[in-house]
Amino acid sequence: MDEKNLINYLGKLAKNNPSALQLNDDIFFDKKKQIAISVDTYNEGIHFSKSPKLSLLIKKIIRSSISDLICKGVKPKYYFISFTSPKKSLNRSNILKIINSLREEQKKYKIKISGGDSTNGNFLSFTIISLGYSSKIIKRNHVKFNDDIYISGNIGDSYLGLKFIKKKIKKFSLYEKNFFLKKYYLPDIPIKICELLKKFANSSVDISDGLIEDLRNMINKQKYKYKINIDLIPVSKEFRSIIKKNNFKIQKNLFNGDDYQVIFTALKKDRKKIKKYAKKLNQKITIIGQIIKNNSGNILLKDGRPLKMTNFKGYRHIF
Amino acid sequence: MDEKNLINYLGKLAKNNPSALQLNDDIFFDKKKQIAISVDTYNEGIHFSKSPKLSLLIKKIIRSSISDLICKGVKPKYYFISFTSPKKSLNRSNILKIINSLREEQKKYKIKISGGDSTNGNFLSFTIISLGYSSKIIKRNHVKFNDDIYISGNIGDSYLGLKFIKKKIKKFSLYEKNFFLKKYYLPDIPIKICELLKKFANSSVDISDGLIEDLRNMINKQKYKYKINIDLIPVSKEFRSIIKKNNFKIQKNLFNGDDYQVIFTALKKDRKKIKKYAKKLNQKITIIGQIIKNNSGNILLKDGRPLKMTNFKGYRHIF
Repeated sequence: MDEKNLINYLGKLAKNNPSALQLNDDIFFDKKKQIAISVDTYNEGIHFSKSPKLSLLIKKIIRSSISDLICKGVKPKYYFISFTSPKKSLNRSNILKIINSLREEQKKYKIKISGGDSTNGNFLSFTIISLGYSSKIIKRNHVKFNDDIYISGNIGDSYLGLKFIKKKIKKFSLYEKNFFLKKYYLPDIPIKICELLKKFANSSVDISDGLIEDLRNMINKQKYKYKINIDLIPVSKEFRSIIKKNNFKIQKNLFNGDDYQVIFTALKKDRKKIKKYAKKLNQKITIIGQIIKNNSGNILLKDGRPLKMTNFKGYRHIF
Repeated sequence: MDEKNLINYLGKLAKNNPSALQLNDDIFFDKKKQIAISVDTYNEGIHFSKSPKLSLLIKKIIRSSISDLICKGVKPKYYFISFTSPKKSLNRSNILKIINSLREEQKKYKIKISGGDSTNGNFLSFTIISLGYSSKIIKRNHVKFNDDIYISGNIGDSYLGLKFIKKKIKKFSLYEKNFFLKKYYLPDIPIKICELLKKFANSSVDISDGLIEDLRNMINKQKYKYKINIDLIPVSKEFRSIIKKNNFKIQKNLFNGDDYQVIFTALKKDRKKIKKYAKKLNQKITIIGQIIKNNSGNILLKDGRPLKMTNFKGYRHIF
């Protein structure tokens, strides 16, 4: 299917429904009712491999799905899950794995299962619906000129995890391997950031497709550009160590997505307050650049020279 | 997948969430927020054939999905649709068919598209989420002793439509063939009945699996039984004509589901008021029996003898 084409048409169909936000924000928001809803589908062979580790897969798709609410400043409260699976593929042991993973995620993120569907099919597919109650949401397309660009947590760890799975990393310690596999399967989503976003953010998205792709998604139809300094992008010390040991180019390992951290922009004058608030929440955030008007070098290297990115397309999740 | 097994476990997981209604009602209802949500997935090879008529399929799954809200007394307001499809299977012409069908359903039922997802997969699958706002819902498991059992509209037409598709009907007029194909692809869902249900119904479900199966679903964990008279079950004059011409047994063509009419129960003392209210709404309803305590003959023939039903299992939708 031509996804973008279909979504364009659906967007036109939604033009008499202000709560659909022109399908531009991956979220439905009814301001009067104060409810926000996001819907995500994950398919075998596209978003995950044909014989996935079910207990990890379930956790990852739950996190990926509630991340859509979190990055808009909405704390997820309920979720629905619709299962499609071949009749024989889910035996009792697999069902228990799924239930156990759901139970753990419910506890970790204080969310409650609220319904869904269970159907047979000749394939494995999951649709997750997340529901949260909030008086406002932070949208895309609302960056302001001169805004600082922030990101939460670290990025790149999940991609190195994928490289471990694909056996593309030669030099590492056992600790490092386990560290990155865990980051890959169980991304740390910044659930505490909701309140901070609601107080300070002008615009925000989560990093699922990759930092650059999602920065573009955030600015989207606005006429602004971004300027970020690659050296300011926060990474783990484990990330630095693997990059160094294996002689990897850092820029090839930073922008591949699946991070589920949040990019947001906020007024420069709020810097101090934001820093203080994040400290109170014990939530790591980092300024990596600013919203600008002109079109010169989007990503700057350490010495200020622009980084040449050729045809950067973001990431296709497979696990 | 063992659907029932999985849903049992999910039900246990949902026990700390009163709004999930133990996953017993195919619906989520937050009484405080006054919102109701239902989720349904439709898969290629299970719910529809491998080369479906997209324009009709889309309409049928929208109707089937909002029927879950309607039968609870909730008027659907918004819907979300998540598409999974092979990359090449949906060209521009198919996308336009989908959009056009959605537009027509939006107008007919006054519902608005509110979001969803569009993903690639090696198969065709749709998940529809319906959302409505209501101060109350009519649940299953709330029949009362001596309640009248009502159904809306006529049943059986959709099943004869399926028989036409499968070329299992020999004697018919062209008018009749077209009539039943339309009933099959485009079931008349009784959207006007919401207000009546909210005012009078003790318990209700929609007829998707078949009248008998869904009557059981409605009474479910309660200790009551039902008594219905097969001769009172409302059918179209076209249904009667085909049954007669082809020497079909009526009981083999009535209980096969896909009807999307509503079964509900209400107090005997309200009969007159209900009749009057239905007339005002211009909504056909028929009393077909009562809720009883003992276990004798559930379905009665014209002469009062019980109908023997062997192993009746309801219907698997394929179109």
